Amino acid sequence: MVIVMGPEATSEDVASIVGVVRSAGVDAFVSKGVQRTIVGLVGDVTQLDAAGLRGMAGVRDVMRISSPYKLVSRENHPERSTVHVGGVPIGPGTVTLIAGPCAVETREQTLEAARMAQAAGATLLRGGAYKPRTSPYAFQGLGEQGLRILAEVREETGLPIVTEVVDAHDVPLVASYADMLQVGTRNAQNFGLLQAVGAAGRPVLLKRGMSATMEEWLMAAEYIAQRGNLDVVLCERGIRTFETATRNTLDVAAVPVAQRLSHLPVIVDPSHSGGRRDLVLPLSRAAIAAGADGIIIDVHPRPEQALCDGPQALVDTDLGELAQVMRDFPPLLGKAAAAALAV
Amino acid sequence: MVIVMGPEATSEDVASIVGVVRSAGVDAFVSKGVQRTIVGLVGDVTQLDAAGLRGMAGVRDVMRISSPYKLVSRENHPERSTVHVGGVPIGPGTVTLIAGPCAVETREQTLEAARMAQAAGATLLRGGAYKPRTSPYAFQGLGEQGLRILAEVREETGLPIVTEVVDAHDVPLVASYADMLQVGTRNAQNFGLLQAVGAAGRPVLLKRGMSATMEEWLMAAEYIAQRGNLDVVLCERGIRTFETATRNTLDVAAVPVAQRLSHLPVIVDPSHSGGRRDLVLPLSRAAIAAGADGIIIDVHPRPEQALCDGPQALVDTDLGELAQVMRDFPPLLGKAAAAALAV
Amino acid sequence: MVIVMGPEATSEDVASIVGVVRSAGVDAFVSKGVQRTIVGLVGDVTQLDAAGLRGMAGVRDVMRISSPYKLVSRENHPERSTVHVGGVPIGPGTVTLIAGPCAVETREQTLEAARMAQAAGATLLRGGAYKPRTSPYAFQGLGEQGLRILAEVREETGLPIVTEVVDAHDVPLVASYADMLQVGTRNAQNFGLLQAVGAAGRPVLLKRGMSATMEEWLMAAEYIAQRGNLDVVLCERGIRTFETATRNTLDVAAVPVAQRLSHLPVIVDPSHSGGRRDLVLPLSRAAIAAGADGIIIDVHPRPEQALCDGPQALVDTDLGELAQVMRDFPPLLGKAAAAALAV
Amino acid sequence: MVIVMGPEATSEDVASIVGVVRSAGVDAFVSKGVQRTIVGLVGDVTQLDAAGLRGMAGVRDVMRISSPYKLVSRENHPERSTVHVGGVPIGPGTVTLIAGPCAVETREQTLEAARMAQAAGATLLRGGAYKPRTSPYAFQGLGEQGLRILAEVREETGLPIVTEVVDAHDVPLVASYADMLQVGTRNAQNFGLLQAVGAAGRPVLLKRGMSATMEEWLMAAEYIAQRGNLDVVLCERGIRTFETATRNTLDVAAVPVAQRLSHLPVIVDPSHSGGRRDLVLPLSRAAIAAGADGIIIDVHPRPEQALCDGPQALVDTDLGELAQVMRDFPPLLGKAAAAALAV
Repeated sequence: MVIVMGPEATSEDVASIVGVVRSAGVDAFVSKGVQRTIVGLVGDVTQLDAAGLRGMAGVRDVMRISSPYKLVSRENHPERSTVHVGGVPIGPGTVTLIAGPCAVETREQTLEAARMAQAAGATLLRGGAYKPRTSPYAFQGLGEQGLRILAEVREETGLPIVTEVVDAHDVPLVASYADMLQVGTRNAQNFGLLQAVGAAGRPVLLKRGMSATMEEWLMAAEYIAQRGNLDVVLCERGIRTFETATRNTLDVAAVPVAQRLSHLPVIVDPSHSGGRRDLVLPLSRAAIAAGADGIIIDVHPRPEQALCDGPQALVDTDLGELAQVMRDFPPLLGKAAAAALAV
Repeated sequence: MVIVMGPEATSEDVASIVGVVRSAGVDAFVSKGVQRTIVGLVGDVTQLDAAGLRGMAGVRDVMRISSPYKLVSRENHPERSTVHVGGVPIGPGTVTLIAGPCAVETREQTLEAARMAQAAGATLLRGGAYKPRTSPYAFQGLGEQGLRILAEVREETGLPIVTEVVDAHDVPLVASYADMLQVGTRNAQNFGLLQAVGAAGRPVLLKRGMSATMEEWLMAAEYIAQRGNLDVVLCERGIRTFETATRNTLDVAAVPVAQRLSHLPVIVDPSHSGGRRDLVLPLSRAAIAAGADGIIIDVHPRPEQALCDGPQALVDTDLGELAQVMRDFPPLLGKAAAAALAV
Repeated sequence: MVIVMGPEATSEDVASIVGVVRSAGVDAFVSKGVQRTIVGLVGDVTQLDAAGLRGMAGVRDVMRISSPYKLVSRENHPERSTVHVGGVPIGPGTVTLIAGPCAVETREQTLEAARMAQAAGATLLRGGAYKPRTSPYAFQGLGEQGLRILAEVREETGLPIVTEVVDAHDVPLVASYADMLQVGTRNAQNFGLLQAVGAAGRPVLLKRGMSATMEEWLMAAEYIAQRGNLDVVLCERGIRTFETATRNTLDVAAVPVAQRLSHLPVIVDPSHSGGRRDLVLPLSRAAIAAGADGIIIDVHPRPEQALCDGPQALVDTDLGELAQVMRDFPPLLGKAAAAALAV
Repeated sequence: MVIVMGPEATSEDVASIVGVVRSAGVDAFVSKGVQRTIVGLVGDVTQLDAAGLRGMAGVRDVMRISSPYKLVSRENHPERSTVHVGGVPIGPGTVTLIAGPCAVETREQTLEAARMAQAAGATLLRGGAYKPRTSPYAFQGLGEQGLRILAEVREETGLPIVTEVVDAHDVPLVASYADMLQVGTRNAQNFGLLQAVGAAGRPVLLKRGMSATMEEWLMAAEYIAQRGNLDVVLCERGIRTFETATRNTLDVAAVPVAQRLSHLPVIVDPSHSGGRRDLVLPLSRAAIAAGADGIIIDVHPRPEQALCDGPQALVDTDLGELAQVMRDFPPLLGKAAAAALAV
């Protein structure tokens, strides 16, 4: 951490900074320049409150140097990690396809969507039993009945299940069915939920908050990791910007950036970023080409009847093209499609 | 709701739209133009899924006309509401000052902050016992012990308490101490929490999500209202934009816009929007001048020692100026400072 | 400037940084910490390319300390400036009202609007002869004929004229009519135009680019100042954000922030930020309350016939209220309405 | 165009709307619903001012249906266009690589960069002689001397030249040297410049404004097209968002979206979107995979000495990888690398 003093700072101001810092067990080195004095800190600064220091007399700026996320940072863990979900790898060596219906509606719809997903190369099944919806008047998911349907479909297809949990107190129940717990964009800073999934003993799919900076996203992962769970997969799903031509703006650069800052796998959700069926294939290709370790896709046998996000669900004809993408692109990135490994 | 068909739409496409709509009990009127056909819907469209319709063949756009939030909308409730918190009004006739420490740290600090707040004209005490923090390594609040401190300080000062709740399962406990429950910006789409506070029988202070549109903010309020609780106060606290000179960008226009769309009172948090002490007074004045029904402010007896957001807390000298603002500005807006009423 | 080296940086990397810096005539001080080395620079760093340094081996970050804008910065010019336009002051002692039609359409419309403006307390007349329009099919302004109309209306009303210039080569012509040259939001980084108005010998009203950071805005002012013209008034007019309920988001905090960073006067355009007539008064009050040195407003005798931005133009009844605001609010900020001084 | 009346609208309000519309030569059809009345317009509505209509009594909303850009829209020109620059195609059948130095500094540096570009598969040379820089103290380009260097390098390498023009009055001069005129992001709404390049008889590379919506971007292209020049190539180069981990946020979805709305070719600038060398390759791959018709890249023989944007310029080793990408990816998209065609 570096503290930059303002031109008006007195030597008392500097001394009082040094005092506060040292009393927190951190070493402070003072460099006096012609116009400015700079205080460099060495040691474990995680207990120091940068904002508090910024408020002290004479301080102009406080800059953090080491990353504030320790466990998920690549600084201390240079090799990229692979997370296994029911035996299926997500990580640097593969491009994993996770697909399924946005919301579980019936056993038939879910099974049909799972078969479609599988035919396209999916090795993990997604499906929502608990749906966070903007309107209280919209379909909110089937709850535990949805989880049971997912488990049955896993039984029939062999696909491990990824499903969202929206309340810390539902975590044990959802974890008893799911192979991987998903935390959605609206809960990306629901810290109690992050801690609960951190303690649940299941891999976690952590979507980026729709207005989360890279640092906030990684800090959310740190919340999970801090409870002892390092099996976290980051998922870029589009951020909120001024552009309204798409539902969100897919920040495709977030893939290489997050992979450089963190050792965790990074996947992309092209369905929710674009919000339109015709964008899912181009965005899937772009995500894989940018180096994503996987993609997560909405499929639905009859999107026009879907109770949630029908307009972005892929249908059969699209899935043929997606299967082709899953065959052609990963090798160009030095990756195998996870399908190949799972066989 | 209006459905605009594309130029390529066939009459079968139109017929199938009309079928879907009518089967939902809604009337559909078809207007054929030279280039386009438009289907106007009349009736209760809340059960219709606009996104689903948008995905049907031939549809170019679906536009909603009535507001999707019913209970909080001013359309059905033209008169602006007043919410009472422990006897203190927040509404069109007043400018209520809510002040106190960002986080409850000790009984002394809280009491001292409450006295400072009161001297500046505050009639409600804010203070956080449960703190949602971006970093898992930051101070997370005192929990129930913090609630007890708040209750003691209420006893001594007579100020009703506003405090944040971050988990649906804590709602009964927090409600047993608090006069008003606060839902923070990071939980603005934590729908389970919104429903829980909606059922708690206490007034709610609902902060705007930092990337919430006006409509999403009002839909969050609708979640609370739908559980039978219309005592909701909306709080603009800055939105996330490209500008980094301030912590967030205070959207001061949100005050008159929200007051026009909803009958609920609207207040402003100048402390968290600016994130800097020197901006609190200018932004407080701006908020009141824009018509805000109140403001909520961080105060701290010794900000340099604060465990949370010290740099934005007001100190004694600022509070003198704030008291002056609370005397001078409300009358120009045809409002009384709530202080006057509370006496 | 402070250069933070990465943990992998070698002493050769540091030496080569120091070499580059010293060869630019700047002194470099190296502080070796346990984990990181920091190079602090002292001297005139304006010739150093921060981005170039950031690309050198071993460098993790480069942080600028002094502000990159010299002439408009308050660091070297602590007292806030007053700009005079045809004798009318804009600065810390006053709240100046600039009003008039968005576009000059006819002599009658312009004169009528000017009379309305004057009755509301305006001491400067705005009016566009050259209009930058998003669509090539929209009304583009009357050009020189519009300037002549403005000059005639100045003759009749005594109001000095503020008008926009959109092309560097039109500057001499426009400056021969206008008392103040306006640079619009779309030209906020049209550097040739900024330099041309800097050389024109007229005060300049510089609107903030709709996606300009505080620093980019002040750098645009620096372009003008660098040509010898320090008579620049900054105008906040709303920034582009995700919120679509208003045309732009008025960044009201930009007023105190810019006033702290720069000695130039800062005014606000509530008409273009909100884009709606019903927001002009609340936003005008908010701007003045935040400390703005003036506001600039669209007025039109018959907005429903306006060729440009009719929906945001104030009409007679609003102007009565605005006149009241201009009487009541400035004294609370320790300012006189400019009207009072002009008399 | 569809006009939605508010619930309070009287039949006089509707009649007066119909009058205004019909007097503009447009037909109006009135549909009275239970709660609302809707007026549908048929005919050439380009002369109607939507904002003006929105300001009329009783009007709640005005929605445009046909696209406001006629010449560049795909509605009237369903087949995607190919633009030829000195014989090199940019369009649906190819992926064209444009590369070269951000700024022309010397003949040697430019020639060396051009050779590097060519080796990587570039068929067009980029290079800036006029540089719009945020700071007036930064290098502003060599001007005409830079153009002469570019022409000499074209002579030696056979690569046609793409170069930026920043002032309408420089257009004839720049067009006398350049094969393609570039309009930069800061000039994306400099309408005089757009019209001048529209009249210059050269293909135009139009960068998206950093805060331009899809519609504003296409309207800028329409300004060029309206002057008779349909040889316009759209270039996505990143938009301004809250995320600061990258210089801008590459909106990769803009590629398929723009290709669907417009018949013009769409390319991507991965150098300026990411602003970091290590992101150029991943973003290049992503752009091509999303369907881009080309990419434009900064290369520099010695980036650490570059006078402009050195940190994002590719060097020799990166270019080997880029050449590989240019061979592997286009065929997967059904495209040839333009290099192949040019041979």
